Amino acid sequence: MNPYVEILCVGNELLIGKTLNTNAQWLSKKITSLGLTVRRITVVGDNVEEISSALKEAIQRRPRFIITTGGLGPTFDDKTLAGVSQALKRELELNQEAMDMVKNTYQRYVAEGRMERFEMTPPRVKMATLPKGAKPLPNPVGTAPGVLIEYEGVGIVVLPGVPQEMMAIFDESVEPLMRKVSGDLTFFEASLEVVGMPESEIAPIIDDVMRDNPYVYVKSHPQTSEKVPRLELHLSTTSNDPALARQRIGRTIIQLSELIRKRGGEVKPKEI
Amino acid sequence: MNPYVEILCVGNELLIGKTLNTNAQWLSKKITSLGLTVRRITVVGDNVEEISSALKEAIQRRPRFIITTGGLGPTFDDKTLAGVSQALKRELELNQEAMDMVKNTYQRYVAEGRMERFEMTPPRVKMATLPKGAKPLPNPVGTAPGVLIEYEGVGIVVLPGVPQEMMAIFDESVEPLMRKVSGDLTFFEASLEVVGMPESEIAPIIDDVMRDNPYVYVKSHPQTSEKVPRLELHLSTTSNDPALARQRIGRTIIQLSELIRKRGGEVKPKEI
Repeated sequence: MNPYVEILCVGNELLIGKTLNTNAQWLSKKITSLGLTVRRITVVGDNVEEISSALKEAIQRRPRFIITTGGLGPTFDDKTLAGVSQALKRELELNQEAMDMVKNTYQRYVAEGRMERFEMTPPRVKMATLPKGAKPLPNPVGTAPGVLIEYEGVGIVVLPGVPQEMMAIFDESVEPLMRKVSGDLTFFEASLEVVGMPESEIAPIIDDVMRDNPYVYVKSHPQTSEKVPRLELHLSTTSNDPALARQRIGRTIIQLSELIRKRGGEVKPKEI
Repeated sequence: MNPYVEILCVGNELLIGKTLNTNAQWLSKKITSLGLTVRRITVVGDNVEEISSALKEAIQRRPRFIITTGGLGPTFDDKTLAGVSQALKRELELNQEAMDMVKNTYQRYVAEGRMERFEMTPPRVKMATLPKGAKPLPNPVGTAPGVLIEYEGVGIVVLPGVPQEMMAIFDESVEPLMRKVSGDLTFFEASLEVVGMPESEIAPIIDDVMRDNPYVYVKSHPQTSEKVPRLELHLSTTSNDPALARQRIGRTIIQLSELIRKRGGEVKPKEI
């Protein structure tokens, strides 16, 4: 089985529905494309106990990585590192490397004329206060560094919630780590659009085709708002051999299309 | 504390990043507006073991409701009810009320000319096969009924993943249940936009204001992509007294605005 990953998103704004969790989608797509498997996504609020329990539960499931987003910054409600510290029983302490990163960012802001001067106030020092043994990850587009902690074989990566910062740190520091772990594994996918056949009629066809094509996962996504039934069939597989993966997906497409047409459905490729 | 709710979303498409989890956002916003609190959102794949463990863990946290979305339908990968059955140790059995709902829907499709005729094939019977003691909830816009199970004081509500169906069943059958539980509690919110003040400078202001206004939660949302710092301050409170809630939010806005202006920031109301 592929090495797997859990995602833990922190933020009351997600639990009151103020913010759509695009971070979880972006990370899931990215991690999947790198050949790893996201097994669970959890969202909790800005609460040290909640963050700590959710993280402890995730660690017990032994993923290779846990990626957290949100709750990393200067304000009182940025509680992710306190939660991590409590879960791992590793005290928060001033991290010199992180302190240098935060200082350098503010110095750059002053040099660029974005600020007149700066002081290392307590909220700014907070961003450099990390659990013992943590490694800060440079934030190319913001002030709070990301954080990496290796803990009992689980790589815990703490990222900010602001999407541009989260993505920039992931691309620069997390993707290379994941590539090392996944080796040459890659995710392959394709989609078909089926018109004129309700999902309940296509169900036995998918059963048959998946029995013949055990490496390909086929999932139907109905669009029921219309009078004429219309659905998407999504095919996916993970492999370290691109030619084999394409062959497997191709064979499954052919078999599905034949069976659907034979029973009167319309089928065509769909862009992903 | 308000009665609280957990959301459990089922679907590989969420874990590979193919689908953005708009269902979780819609439900969170809706449930919050009804005066209940969403405490955790969990996403797992189409896997009976995963669904069952996530549900058992959620039950142990004793929320008043657990709302699941996805994995409810006729195909092999619709596994939510099997997961619920395993978690609760309640066998799946043919539910006559659900069977009537499914049949009526197909009869309507035939009457409307959307199908020529129908048979109750195994995939269709599957949609009426529910855990023992479950109550089916009518699906006004699709074929698979929702499901309600009362289990040790937790109301487990199983909804489809297709957004229109999920929303229609929620509005018709779940909202009334929640209103009964929440009484007159309502959620109130407001937003301010602050320009020209970095989050690290606003942090101590929020601390002071929240100390003076313990019923109002203030959260800052930075938009760091710009040269001039710009952020949103979101204020919220839950109360059964609308006048009091508005007064509390109003007082907090005045105090925040004064302190921000005094230190050179620009502040104005922001539409939500």
